[in-house]
Amino acid sequence: MTDTIQSAIDYMQETRDQMMEDYKALLRFPSISADPAYADDVCACADWIVSQLSALGFENCEAIATDGLPVVYGEWLKAGADKPTVLVYAHYDVQPVDPLPLWHSEPFEAVIRDGKIFARGASDNKAGVWGNLKTFEALLRANGTLPVNIKIMFEGEEESGSPSIEAFVEANKERLRADLLLNCDGDLAPDEPQLTYAGRGIVSAEVRVKGPQADIHSGLYGGLVQNPLHVAGAIIGSFHDERGRVRLPGYYDSLKEADAAEKGRIAAGFQAEALLEGAGATAFWGETIAPAAERATVYPTLDVNGMWGGYQGPGNKTIIPAEAGFKVTMRLAPDQDPRVVSQLLKKHVEGFATETVTVDCSIGEEAWYFELETEGPWLEAVQSAIEETVGRRAQLVRTGGSIPILGVFNRAIGLPITAFAYGHGEGIHSPNEYLEIDTFFTSLAAAARLYHNLGQVTG
Amino acid sequence: MTDTIQSAIDYMQETRDQMMEDYKALLRFPSISADPAYADDVCACADWIVSQLSALGFENCEAIATDGLPVVYGEWLKAGADKPTVLVYAHYDVQPVDPLPLWHSEPFEAVIRDGKIFARGASDNKAGVWGNLKTFEALLRANGTLPVNIKIMFEGEEESGSPSIEAFVEANKERLRADLLLNCDGDLAPDEPQLTYAGRGIVSAEVRVKGPQADIHSGLYGGLVQNPLHVAGAIIGSFHDERGRVRLPGYYDSLKEADAAEKGRIAAGFQAEALLEGAGATAFWGETIAPAAERATVYPTLDVNGMWGGYQGPGNKTIIPAEAGFKVTMRLAPDQDPRVVSQLLKKHVEGFATETVTVDCSIGEEAWYFELETEGPWLEAVQSAIEETVGRRAQLVRTGGSIPILGVFNRAIGLPITAFAYGHGEGIHSPNEYLEIDTFFTSLAAAARLYHNLGQVTG
Repeated sequence: MTDTIQSAIDYMQETRDQMMEDYKALLRFPSISADPAYADDVCACADWIVSQLSALGFENCEAIATDGLPVVYGEWLKAGADKPTVLVYAHYDVQPVDPLPLWHSEPFEAVIRDGKIFARGASDNKAGVWGNLKTFEALLRANGTLPVNIKIMFEGEEESGSPSIEAFVEANKERLRADLLLNCDGDLAPDEPQLTYAGRGIVSAEVRVKGPQADIHSGLYGGLVQNPLHVAGAIIGSFHDERGRVRLPGYYDSLKEADAAEKGRIAAGFQAEALLEGAGATAFWGETIAPAAERATVYPTLDVNGMWGGYQGPGNKTIIPAEAGFKVTMRLAPDQDPRVVSQLLKKHVEGFATETVTVDCSIGEEAWYFELETEGPWLEAVQSAIEETVGRRAQLVRTGGSIPILGVFNRAIGLPITAFAYGHGEGIHSPNEYLEIDTFFTSLAAAARLYHNLGQVTG
Repeated sequence: MTDTIQSAIDYMQETRDQMMEDYKALLRFPSISADPAYADDVCACADWIVSQLSALGFENCEAIATDGLPVVYGEWLKAGADKPTVLVYAHYDVQPVDPLPLWHSEPFEAVIRDGKIFARGASDNKAGVWGNLKTFEALLRANGTLPVNIKIMFEGEEESGSPSIEAFVEANKERLRADLLLNCDGDLAPDEPQLTYAGRGIVSAEVRVKGPQADIHSGLYGGLVQNPLHVAGAIIGSFHDERGRVRLPGYYDSLKEADAAEKGRIAAGFQAEALLEGAGATAFWGETIAPAAERATVYPTLDVNGMWGGYQGPGNKTIIPAEAGFKVTMRLAPDQDPRVVSQLLKKHVEGFATETVTVDCSIGEEAWYFELETEGPWLEAVQSAIEETVGRRAQLVRTGGSIPILGVFNRAIGLPITAFAYGHGEGIHSPNEYLEIDTFFTSLAAAARLYHNLGQVTG
């Protein structure tokens, strides 16, 4: 068995330069899911990946239509009924490229420089697509078979909020049935490997507050006409008490305190100094509610992400503006139902309407919290593979961020989930995104070990 | 005497076309005071007006330097020591012309069309400058003398908030000494003449609320770092109670209730339906504080004129923004000292700073309320002139707006003030500003009668 892995790793090293050249073909598709103008490119990218899977010997390969952009599916089920079936998730769509002038090379013409490959999606998350394809190729070349049964699910809408994925998963439960979901959307830095094991849900909303039909003179109308910016300010000001607790009635009703083991994991994975440095801050805020590590990860939040209204230029403009607005996202604790929370928000916010000012709260995203394995053989398979490759195990980290697709799997299919990632990069969602080639090949070696280890897990 | 007036009016009518052609020379100066790029044009305009005054026989004509743009001064003091001296105010600077594409003709190349003259400043307020020059010319041609002593003060900074005028008036009290100030900045519609007799003071401010050094991820930092938009919302939300009363501590301390006569004048001049229509509203707001007419004119207000922070584009951006801001103007009641009120605001707003969020309140304009004559011979001189010309007296109107220069005169010199205006126009501060030529000549006739009437007032 170990010989098989070494053969696969040798193959990876021997074909390294060609693999990176070939990667450029995948990076050439401008598969930007947020902009409808690129829909054809997203579909062409899906078809290209389907053809690659077929060439590897995968079966039932298909770019499956959804209400939005297609999901790439393919399966390799010849490992035997006694071997686990692993559903492998990554996404092939990418972020927009704005601001284009800040890129040093074309975002969709990949360039290799200083051991890095620069392109939009090079790291997030075409590395997850390409890494899996190349790992399967190496294992198949070295051994003629794979150590586990594989089902591929590569999403095409992750960067635009996965609007179609819940319906897709519900409609394809049978096809997606597996023993484990392996999430390959992420980053793995060999010198400091981390695995995210849980995160918060999310609800987003946009609020519009409307008063007079147009901006009107604040001298003539001041004191006479209600100012929608005052109402917007009152709503924003109503969201928190002085300690930073969210004041939406009922908001904390379903909150459960984490158990001691979980509190320990949270504290161990919390990197206070790096976070303070990232914020340019000397202190966190709201300390009386709970320890900082828990506030940042398991406590729910409400943040106004943007607000606007009236005159924003230099100097003065003496108006009562016609309209104000703001955007809200809430990060949800475990067991907070996003559909319940979004209605708490809507009811509270729209309660500020008066006879002369309307308030409309439009709900956007509604996604559950998620959780992956924190112990057991599936996680151990990942940890051993990482340890054998880079000499240390990954730190388990609870994030305050959200991965809607994992919450969907948690609830719709209920299978165990663990995570793995292909290499380390930077510039994700920014200009000059890149992937480090060395760390990508370190991950490929770890992936060969990972799939081998997963093949050893017995139900 | 009546013959003198008629001769002057005849002269105005005989030279009507030439007067409007000559007006184009004044309108050709792009005397935009708000934009430093036009400072030379403002000065050239001042020099041109000085030359016109000199040509009329005015003495000591000068474009007097200030800390900002020059004040045009000139005097004609030959009416005799027994005649009143009238200080005539207007302004020769104009608003910017943006948005230029909406103009149907060049803003500084006046065009006469359909009985209107189109140009930036044609109405606001070069009509006040030109109307006075042409009235004096007509009276001098008809009679060789003027019925009163005249001192001219034409300002060059009115459209940019008169930043230098208070210091100028303080430094030139002797030169500006007079029996009456006649404010010629305004509009006179012959079918519905109005005279503004009082208005509110004003304080403006800009508030900046700063948190993290840059926009940071609301998933990683939500609950951990204080959001400056929340603080901005809390400040805005703190400004008013549910009835619309301003909650700045001490804000109403100097408020005096208007007497019965004044309440009657306010009610008589209040045009509820026109105001409701202008706001596109079916009802006013805050009715429990005081009657709407008084809330709009003698009660102080606080309005947020604009606010901003974070992401304002389509969709979502999950950030805790680095910074928020908003602009405030307060309209001040009689006897509210703007320098006291601005400090109440600053103290209240900056009190929202925390260990992790800074709040800076920068005060802009600070101007007193103003009041003109509401009875007596000076006002009667104006009313008679209007009545003799258009068959009706002007409605006295209290405005909720602010005219900082009049507050300066009220306090620095303390002389009686009344108002008169030259014609009716529209598009003030907007594209396609114009002055109606017929109403301008109606006003010229009324002005000849007005200066005659003022000459009859004895001290």
